[in-house]
Amino acid sequence: MADMTLLDRARKGEITAEIRRAAEAAAGAGIDPETLRRLVAKGHVVIPMNVSLRAVPTPIGACMRTRVNANIGTSADYADIDSEIEKAKIAVQCGADTVMDLSTGGDLMDTLERILDATPVPVGTVPIYHAACTRTAGTALSDMTSDDLFNAVRSHAKSGVDFMTIHAGVTSATVDNLIASERILTIVSRGGALTTAWMMQNEQENPFYSEFDYLLEIAREYDITLSLGDGMRPGCIADANDYAMFSEVITLGRLVKRARAAGVQCMVEGPGHVPMDAIEYGVRVTKELCDNAPLYLLGPVVTDIAPGYDHITSAIGGAIAGMNGADFLCMVTPAEHLALPTVDDIREGTIVTRIAAHAIDLVKPGVRDSARAMDLKMAVARRDLDWDAQFELAIDCECGGQKESQRARSIHEARNSQSETCSMCGELCAIKVMNKSLGKKD
Amino acid sequence: MADMTLLDRARKGEITAEIRRAAEAAAGAGIDPETLRRLVAKGHVVIPMNVSLRAVPTPIGACMRTRVNANIGTSADYADIDSEIEKAKIAVQCGADTVMDLSTGGDLMDTLERILDATPVPVGTVPIYHAACTRTAGTALSDMTSDDLFNAVRSHAKSGVDFMTIHAGVTSATVDNLIASERILTIVSRGGALTTAWMMQNEQENPFYSEFDYLLEIAREYDITLSLGDGMRPGCIADANDYAMFSEVITLGRLVKRARAAGVQCMVEGPGHVPMDAIEYGVRVTKELCDNAPLYLLGPVVTDIAPGYDHITSAIGGAIAGMNGADFLCMVTPAEHLALPTVDDIREGTIVTRIAAHAIDLVKPGVRDSARAMDLKMAVARRDLDWDAQFELAIDCECGGQKESQRARSIHEARNSQSETCSMCGELCAIKVMNKSLGKKD
Repeated sequence: MADMTLLDRARKGEITAEIRRAAEAAAGAGIDPETLRRLVAKGHVVIPMNVSLRAVPTPIGACMRTRVNANIGTSADYADIDSEIEKAKIAVQCGADTVMDLSTGGDLMDTLERILDATPVPVGTVPIYHAACTRTAGTALSDMTSDDLFNAVRSHAKSGVDFMTIHAGVTSATVDNLIASERILTIVSRGGALTTAWMMQNEQENPFYSEFDYLLEIAREYDITLSLGDGMRPGCIADANDYAMFSEVITLGRLVKRARAAGVQCMVEGPGHVPMDAIEYGVRVTKELCDNAPLYLLGPVVTDIAPGYDHITSAIGGAIAGMNGADFLCMVTPAEHLALPTVDDIREGTIVTRIAAHAIDLVKPGVRDSARAMDLKMAVARRDLDWDAQFELAIDCECGGQKESQRARSIHEARNSQSETCSMCGELCAIKVMNKSLGKKD
Repeated sequence: MADMTLLDRARKGEITAEIRRAAEAAAGAGIDPETLRRLVAKGHVVIPMNVSLRAVPTPIGACMRTRVNANIGTSADYADIDSEIEKAKIAVQCGADTVMDLSTGGDLMDTLERILDATPVPVGTVPIYHAACTRTAGTALSDMTSDDLFNAVRSHAKSGVDFMTIHAGVTSATVDNLIASERILTIVSRGGALTTAWMMQNEQENPFYSEFDYLLEIAREYDITLSLGDGMRPGCIADANDYAMFSEVITLGRLVKRARAAGVQCMVEGPGHVPMDAIEYGVRVTKELCDNAPLYLLGPVVTDIAPGYDHITSAIGGAIAGMNGADFLCMVTPAEHLALPTVDDIREGTIVTRIAAHAIDLVKPGVRDSARAMDLKMAVARRDLDWDAQFELAIDCECGGQKESQRARSIHEARNSQSETCSMCGELCAIKVMNKSLGKKD
């Protein structure tokens, strides 16, 4: 149990061990511990870290590398813990900075504990899933009590979870705006739907909102970082950026203020399905109203009509959002909207999201130079037609544990060239032609 | 042979058969023939159409759907015509609006003619490849003559090609700016490199620039649409948006003016590798200097370090570029930077580029409403948990000739749910919970 949270201590001027380790880990990006402390103190960076101190310190927010979260977890239909552990490991190998256990099937606490054991990175959860799934058999969702919700939070906190999504912005006022929004897909956030359905059936306010101070007490006790969930995230292009979404953002902004005042770190979550030209202002409004709390996005998915390819529609939206201030991207897999992802889906989703995050880092203040240094090495390897170096420098090089990109090598070698170039251009390779012309290399 | 080009006639107020057919084909997007004629007359839209009138009229530019080109063609290492024909067919099935034959291996004219026969859409080429590949055996690139270049243009024009990439902006002044730019990867455009090497070795101006009026004569004769190539497109993030690139853009803008004055339709090509925050101004400068000529992009690739995933890095960059005014995206495949693409690479690259193009159309003036209608149908299918409709409405539904998305269906069914929902959420499906809560559907 912590008398003082990491946020309390950072505010008092203390460069905690976590801040120092985080600054060291980010050494390439040139952040010094005192700068990082100030960012944490202001709440512009969070370092999710349960009092159990299990996880690698992973700063998320301004001037930090764009972070990637991988969602894993069992479902009612597929409740194999080993498979989820494998997904967690693959995700981390492929560059996920955090993992969220969204399990809803099987023994939830056993699954969570095994994931915590197997994972070096910060782990997040959505406690309302736990409350909804572990209610007494045969009872209705509406029979869940406020205690069930807070007990789930406390169980997760005790087990060592570092950050939790809490849909505290789903209030009566938000639901009123939701109805006025006349959406096609009313709610697509599971936590948002469970909360709203519970509120409607019980005609009561959301306990996470009405008893937010109690939530903050538990969060302080275990030094949990709150991730204020976007229960109103739009689920289709037609529903984007409406009354419901922005009224929730206003509430989240006010909750950020209260959390920080209580010494509790917090992030804010964002949409969802958003047309490309509405991403920038959505991100800016959210950053403004939430006083630059780190912004954690699912997507945004930039078109509804690409099931099977939503890792790509999300990479497009996430990249645009990150260019405009989003800090933390939730990996989306090819199985989004379709099924519980397989291990391969997790690998693909994580790599593609990592690519979007790196594209953001190339233009993000504070990390731009270190990100560009990676691309410069690749450019030099291409100029020198040094294929092995290209495979080693590829972003997916660590996936599956190998030290080079198996995908890049296999594509190159499956259609090998008679020349030192590739089979596309052969002797007409622009690089070769120019190297020869400039006398750089024959 | 045409006494008047399509551009001449549009300027005189004539709604040609091509313009009428193009407007009819775009009926869903609500363009009337007179509006389209005005856009063509101003040069803001082009309809590439050889005097042979083989191709489907495909308007490219302002207020038109974002178009996708698929590059196919043999190489020295892989010169199998049948395989390239198959690629062309698959690309068109997957939504490519045009095809470029970039063949550099085998019998080039036979390949081109067979692709023209097999392809209903406009076909483009890069005649300098032809000139470079068909020069007498044993001669150096520098032995190519100006006649070789123009003969290649004429052969392609005669065979029925609709548009041609001509690197006329690679001038002595551009090359001087290139040297001053001190690039890592001097030139990565094959046409740009061949032209520059030829100019350096022969100490002569680029014939396509010095004899641009002669080029326009041939273009008029066969009503070829010129695609003014970006020989200086940056090949890595470090080289983006430099003296070389912008000096070429200035030249291209001046050539657009000359082409239009001669009654020749033209487009302008753009980069390349560009960091995300530099895409918008690059597109805007180019559009401004080239008086809103349709802008045709390869990429932009937003990071150098993702070989094997450059269809995705290009989709991100292309989407941002399109949101800011680019009209025409060249498909990039997973084999980019690595090898001549396979049929599967072409399929994947075309679908992913089509997704980026659709995301652009959702925010593009003139086509936004018709694009959004497609997404709305998908949103309704999701609300109704109507899986068959979701597979039918997916963007890749026509690929391979089937009427639904095989990928979406296979992901969904491989991990089938016990419930009417998917295996991710089961009974916790937000849509199901809300439909029930709102009494919409149980």
